Amino acid sequence: MTTVAAYAAPAAKAPLERTTIERRAVGEHDVLIDIKFAGICHSDIHQAREGWGEAIFPMVPGHEIAGVVSEVGAGVTEYTVGDRVGVGCMVDSCRECANCRAGQEQYCTNGAVMTYNGIGRDGEPTHGGYAQKIVVDENYVVRIPDGLALDEAAPLLCAGITTYSPLRHWNAGPGKKVAVLGMGGLGHMAVKIAHALGAEVTVLSQSLRKKDDGLRLGADHYHATSDPVTFEQLAGTFDLIVSTVSAPLDLGAYLGLLKTDGALVNVGAPEEPVSLNLFSVIVGRKTLAGSSIGGIRETQEMLDFCAEHGIGAEIELIAATEINDAYERVLGSDVRYRFVIDTATI
Amino acid sequence: MTTVAAYAAPAAKAPLERTTIERRAVGEHDVLIDIKFAGICHSDIHQAREGWGEAIFPMVPGHEIAGVVSEVGAGVTEYTVGDRVGVGCMVDSCRECANCRAGQEQYCTNGAVMTYNGIGRDGEPTHGGYAQKIVVDENYVVRIPDGLALDEAAPLLCAGITTYSPLRHWNAGPGKKVAVLGMGGLGHMAVKIAHALGAEVTVLSQSLRKKDDGLRLGADHYHATSDPVTFEQLAGTFDLIVSTVSAPLDLGAYLGLLKTDGALVNVGAPEEPVSLNLFSVIVGRKTLAGSSIGGIRETQEMLDFCAEHGIGAEIELIAATEINDAYERVLGSDVRYRFVIDTATI
Repeated sequence: MTTVAAYAAPAAKAPLERTTIERRAVGEHDVLIDIKFAGICHSDIHQAREGWGEAIFPMVPGHEIAGVVSEVGAGVTEYTVGDRVGVGCMVDSCRECANCRAGQEQYCTNGAVMTYNGIGRDGEPTHGGYAQKIVVDENYVVRIPDGLALDEAAPLLCAGITTYSPLRHWNAGPGKKVAVLGMGGLGHMAVKIAHALGAEVTVLSQSLRKKDDGLRLGADHYHATSDPVTFEQLAGTFDLIVSTVSAPLDLGAYLGLLKTDGALVNVGAPEEPVSLNLFSVIVGRKTLAGSSIGGIRETQEMLDFCAEHGIGAEIELIAATEINDAYERVLGSDVRYRFVIDTATI
Repeated sequence: MTTVAAYAAPAAKAPLERTTIERRAVGEHDVLIDIKFAGICHSDIHQAREGWGEAIFPMVPGHEIAGVVSEVGAGVTEYTVGDRVGVGCMVDSCRECANCRAGQEQYCTNGAVMTYNGIGRDGEPTHGGYAQKIVVDENYVVRIPDGLALDEAAPLLCAGITTYSPLRHWNAGPGKKVAVLGMGGLGHMAVKIAHALGAEVTVLSQSLRKKDDGLRLGADHYHATSDPVTFEQLAGTFDLIVSTVSAPLDLGAYLGLLKTDGALVNVGAPEEPVSLNLFSVIVGRKTLAGSSIGGIRETQEMLDFCAEHGIGAEIELIAATEINDAYERVLGSDVRYRFVIDTATI
C-alpha cells in the first residue's frame, strides 16, 4: 500500500479538499503511474454531486489521466519504467464476457470497474486521477505517443475516446455531413476528430460566442441553436449528429435535422429523462442512439490517430486549489475547452 | 370521373357510414382497380379519430387494398385488365428527390401522397380502400402473386411491409434473436416474416392469451410483458426488437432487453410523447429507431417473399356494416389478427 496525496469530495455536493488515499501494492500485472495531469470532465461533477444517482464517498474524481510509469509488476509485459501512459474511465472489467473478448470492455456485461466511484474486483472503492499516483492493471493502461504533450493528451482519455468511438462507429468520413452539438470539452474534441476523419463538420452551439474557435479547430459551419432559423435552414441535412450536451434537449427538433437514415448519437447524459415523440424517428427511419467511451484497443487507436493528426485537447492548466472554481466554470460553460489539473500542485 | 360506393367517416370520431365518392378519370398512367378486399389498420382508427392530428373529412380510410385491374390508361406498361394487384399506404410521391430515386418513396422529402387523408398532386383529397374502386398511377401499384389469396394478401400492403422493411433493414435472419412486441395485426405478420427470414423469434405480449397462436405462426418463445420476471429473464437477449405497439411504452425497460448494439425499432406510433432516460441507449450503444412502411419496389419484394413462403395474414372477413364494431374490437385487441372488409358488401 502507498499513501498518496489527492483531492477528494468528502460527501455529495461538498467542495473537494486535499486529503490522502491508499493505493494498493503493485501486483504482478500492475503498473504504478506517477500522474502528471488529470482532466476535469463534466461527469466528475455529475458524480461528485450525485446527479447520476448515489455515489461512493470520499470520492477522488478524475478519469482523464496522463502520467509516467514508475514501477511495474513482475508479470507486466507491455510497459516499462519511464513510459508515457494514460488511464481513462475504466480500470478493469470481467475479461470473459463477449464484449470484453471483443475489446468492448466499456460494455462489459458484468460491469466494467470505473476508474473512480466504482468498486474494484478486490472489493475496495476505486479512486481517480486527482491524485499523485495510481496503480492500474496493465491491460487497462494505454500508451501516449511521443508526439502528444501529456497535458493536452489527458482529456483524450475521456473526451477524446467518447467522441472518436461514435464518429468511427457511425462512419464519419469523407462525404458525410456531421454535426457536433455542444462546443465544450467533448464537443471541441468531436470537431477536431470529425474534421481529421474527413467529414464536413457543423457545430451547433447555443450561441455564436465560440464560432471563431470552432472554425479554427476544423468546423466548416457554425450555427446557433438559440436561433429558430437554424432548424429551418438545416432541416434534413446531417448523416450524423453527435450530441455532447448533458442538459435535456428537444430531441424532436434535432432529429428533424437528420437525413433519412441519419443518427443522433448521445454521448452527453442528461440527469433527467427526455420526452420524445416516436414519429420523430419513424418518419425518415432515424436512429436515436447512445455511446459510452470506447474499448481499450480503440482508446489506443484513438491516441495513435490523434498523434498522427496532431490533435490534442485545448486546455486551461490549473492548480489543484482551483478545482472547485473550475467546477463552477464548467457548469457555466466557461472553459476553453478543458480544465487540466497539474497534479504536481496537489 | 366515376361515382363509387364507399364507407366514410363524415367527421372526426363519427361512425363510418355508407356514401359515394368520385374517382378521377383513368389517366394515361393510371389503372382502375376493382377493390375486392380492404384491411382495417389501427392507423385507420387513429386518423378517423384525429388521434394523430387534424385530418381531412369526409374520410374513406383503407390502405391495405387488394383487387383486380379493370381498366388501364394508354401509357400503362406493367399491368393489364384482370391482373391481381395491391395498393398500400401511398399512391404518389415527388419521384425526384433522392429518396424517391432510391426507391424509398415512403420517405419522399417532398412528402408522399398518402392513400387517404392526403392531398393528391391534383390538389384533391385522397380516399382509401373502403370503397368499390380506386384509380392509382401504375408506379404505385404492386402485383399480388398467384400463390396469395386476395383477402389474406390485403393486410400485407401495410402490416406486411411495415414489419418486413425493418426486419430486412436491421438484418433479421439466421443467428439473430428478434423480439416482436405486440401480437396484433402488425405483430402477427412480424412473427411470420421474421421466422421465414430464419431468425429466432420471441413474442412479447401483454398476456399469454395468444401464446398458442404465436407459436403456431412461427415464434420460438412467448413471454408476457405483464410479468416482471420477463424483464429479468430476458435482459440483454435480443439483437432486434420490433415494437408494433401504439400505446406509450416504458422504453427503458425494453431497451434493457437488447444486447450491446441492439436496436428497438418502432413501427407502432403512440399518439403521446414517451419519456426516455438517455442512459438507456448510452449503456450498450443501443439504438432506438423507427421505420415507416416501405418503398414500392420493397413492397413488391415483400409480396414475392410472402408468396414464396406461403405467408398471408390471419384474417377475420367482415361485411362493411361491421366496420364500426370492428374498430371497437381493434381498440380492445380483440381481433385475430386483421379485419378485412369484403368490399362486395359496400
